Amino acid sequence: MLSHKQQVLLNTVTKLLRKNAHRRVRDIIHKVHTADLAVVFEILNESQQLVVFDLLTNNEIRAELLEDLEEVVAIRLIKDYSSSEIAELINLMSTDDATDLIQEFDEEKVDEILSLLKKDDREDLEELIAYEDDTAGGLMVTEFMAVRCDESIQTVLEEIQASGDDAEMVFYTYAVDEDGRLVGIASLREIIQAEEEDTLEDIMETDIHKVRPYTDQEEVARVISQYDLLAVPVVDDENMIIGIVTVDDIIDVIREENTEDILKLVGTDEDLFEDYSVRKNIIARFPWLLATWFGGIVVMKLVGAYEDQLSKFVALTAFFPVILGMSGNVGQQSATIIVRGLAIGKVDVSRLASTVGKETLTGLVIGVIYGLALAGAAWVEFGDEVAMIPLVVGLSQCAGMGVAAMAGALFPMLLTRLNIDPAVSTGPLVTTSLDLIGMWIYIAFATLFIF
Amino acid sequence: MLSHKQQVLLNTVTKLLRKNAHRRVRDIIHKVHTADLAVVFEILNESQQLVVFDLLTNNEIRAELLEDLEEVVAIRLIKDYSSSEIAELINLMSTDDATDLIQEFDEEKVDEILSLLKKDDREDLEELIAYEDDTAGGLMVTEFMAVRCDESIQTVLEEIQASGDDAEMVFYTYAVDEDGRLVGIASLREIIQAEEEDTLEDIMETDIHKVRPYTDQEEVARVISQYDLLAVPVVDDENMIIGIVTVDDIIDVIREENTEDILKLVGTDEDLFEDYSVRKNIIARFPWLLATWFGGIVVMKLVGAYEDQLSKFVALTAFFPVILGMSGNVGQQSATIIVRGLAIGKVDVSRLASTVGKETLTGLVIGVIYGLALAGAAWVEFGDEVAMIPLVVGLSQCAGMGVAAMAGALFPMLLTRLNIDPAVSTGPLVTTSLDLIGMWIYIAFATLFIF
Repeated sequence: MLSHKQQVLLNTVTKLLRKNAHRRVRDIIHKVHTADLAVVFEILNESQQLVVFDLLTNNEIRAELLEDLEEVVAIRLIKDYSSSEIAELINLMSTDDATDLIQEFDEEKVDEILSLLKKDDREDLEELIAYEDDTAGGLMVTEFMAVRCDESIQTVLEEIQASGDDAEMVFYTYAVDEDGRLVGIASLREIIQAEEEDTLEDIMETDIHKVRPYTDQEEVARVISQYDLLAVPVVDDENMIIGIVTVDDIIDVIREENTEDILKLVGTDEDLFEDYSVRKNIIARFPWLLATWFGGIVVMKLVGAYEDQLSKFVALTAFFPVILGMSGNVGQQSATIIVRGLAIGKVDVSRLASTVGKETLTGLVIGVIYGLALAGAAWVEFGDEVAMIPLVVGLSQCAGMGVAAMAGALFPMLLTRLNIDPAVSTGPLVTTSLDLIGMWIYIAFATLFIF
Repeated sequence: MLSHKQQVLLNTVTKLLRKNAHRRVRDIIHKVHTADLAVVFEILNESQQLVVFDLLTNNEIRAELLEDLEEVVAIRLIKDYSSSEIAELINLMSTDDATDLIQEFDEEKVDEILSLLKKDDREDLEELIAYEDDTAGGLMVTEFMAVRCDESIQTVLEEIQASGDDAEMVFYTYAVDEDGRLVGIASLREIIQAEEEDTLEDIMETDIHKVRPYTDQEEVARVISQYDLLAVPVVDDENMIIGIVTVDDIIDVIREENTEDILKLVGTDEDLFEDYSVRKNIIARFPWLLATWFGGIVVMKLVGAYEDQLSKFVALTAFFPVILGMSGNVGQQSATIIVRGLAIGKVDVSRLASTVGKETLTGLVIGVIYGLALAGAAWVEFGDEVAMIPLVVGLSQCAGMGVAAMAGALFPMLLTRLNIDPAVSTGPLVTTSLDLIGMWIYIAFATLFIF
């Protein structure tokens, strides 16, 4: 949600744009914090975004804004810029964001832009482009502070003083041996608190949490959050430090992954919000609904097959939605709880039997209560017509919920054992299958006791 | 998910516990990182947890472990301890975690424990206990570095050197005026890079992001993540700094809130994982299912009311699940997308008409496609019996999905305008209402064209 300040900014900017008061917009956008501007910017429509971006005359603010925006939005703003203009902006951006942005251009343009950069910067970017977006390599910055471990604290302090703004997020100094291998780490506080004649080696921590460039971003997030780090070093196969991933980027990763998890639960695409349009919306949501639809078709076929029987006992059809819905929902709850529990480490895959047992028992207990209630409701409504209806709906409710809860819990556990992301089990196909479990059971009981 | 290291630790510890090899367990748990131990600990059963905790002889490790565990687990471990033993552990914990833990005891015990602490620590805790858990006051620590702004950098450095481990997460120094009011902030890097004869005032940043003790934790998370901060100062009404909230606690908040959001989506309780048992599971899940169940009862009543008509056209009942499911799902998708979009600032409440329009159009387009497909399927299956069935199911599918998408988007937008948390609109009552929209429309069309 937008903060009050951001809301005011949005209202002011849109009002002024409507009045074509461009000079006043320019004054305002140069004064606010870029983070606020970025939030407001994403809500403007495309033409407003282009106008506002053109009004920004300060290239440093433009670069900061590009860092904060979704790449699809950022690329739209500069896609018609000359390579030298883009190179100038890229130069001002931090290496991780610059890498993400530059990759959106075609290869020829990328080469042109890179050729306009200083050699060091070009090499850094070329290296970073090689990594996947969602790995430590794709998240890391190459600006960090590495010092030989046999240097004195005095020298370390001098190096920090000389580093200027370059190593923007400095809170650790990384200690390396003569070959450049990572051997230790010291926080700025520890460095300030050390005696000047100490060496870095004397004070450094040697039990280092580190990741590889190809480590998945979720694992990087886990390391940073479980060990309460501000940054984690990225080392290559020779244990040479090649970059660091900072905690601010990890917060973005966690937020993104959570948006993904939530959108997956209702079967929409994970990157829907990058560029939220009706077209994208339709494409993203179609598949999940397809599963529900086919589930509905299966029920239709089932009813078609039992049409003669059902037309004699039409009261039975009154329970389709509740039977289907309750087993589907309890199954989806189980699947979601297990998937989330696995993700945050509260459920462990080695405890398969006890976990699935817990969920099944939960489903059965809930099923007994709702089954009795449903049998009661069925008795009141249809008891005088078909005496067996309360029995069939009660039994079906209970059995359906027990089986669905069991299946909903078992499936993600088994997937995890097979090293498959268990999140697929909250997806459309499984959810629909869980819906249908109740229906099959219902028809089976109806056949047994009534037809 | 557990890391490989944690998985190995879990397997080793449980195996050794089963063999009663307590001494070996003790050796292992004293050697591993407390963060790893905490993750593994939460998966052990209650009696195993008690055994392992008793095997920890080092009080500092015990205190660290208590910090990392869920409070319900932590409290179970020490509930039978004497007040002096608890006071000793509380003393070793950071103030925010100590506050959370101590509040789990009854008032008498809390007073007893507090009376055993040093005056300063007691006063800090008494102050912190007054704040709600989910506010900045509940998250903050009272260990921070505040220095008069007219002091020299030399003095600031000396104070940092003298602070020892106390201000554990030092990366900013807060500058205060003669009355103790917060006037500026400087990072450790800036302090190291300054000239020794500079004063803090010369280098400090005066545009400070700060929060109040009663600021909601989600807002604190927003400030820290949007402005890429490592900590945010908490000030009282007189602008006196009373604590800081650090980024590591914010990561936990974000994770917790996300678990909440996901569990809410399937209608289970947000704190299910604090203490995951069958009893809690049942209680947490019952209400959401109740809404689905009542929805089912409404459908049953509806069918009861139209029993005579429906028994002549039993084919119509075959479409209950698909009509109900599709409008419910598309509505839930819209509600979820809008709620999440509002939460992460990608959807703005001032754009009500265009946002709801987008969602409605999406629902209608998807509805037309699925409506045509369903009409086709109905024609093949039942077209020879009742010629109007394809028309009725097709129209109902399309109209139901359009209306449900509109309602699903509109509802959270309106709630936000009324300053009510829009997340309730992904809750059970609304979801069930969206389910039923399709059914009402279906019966209406059936009455119009067939009955």
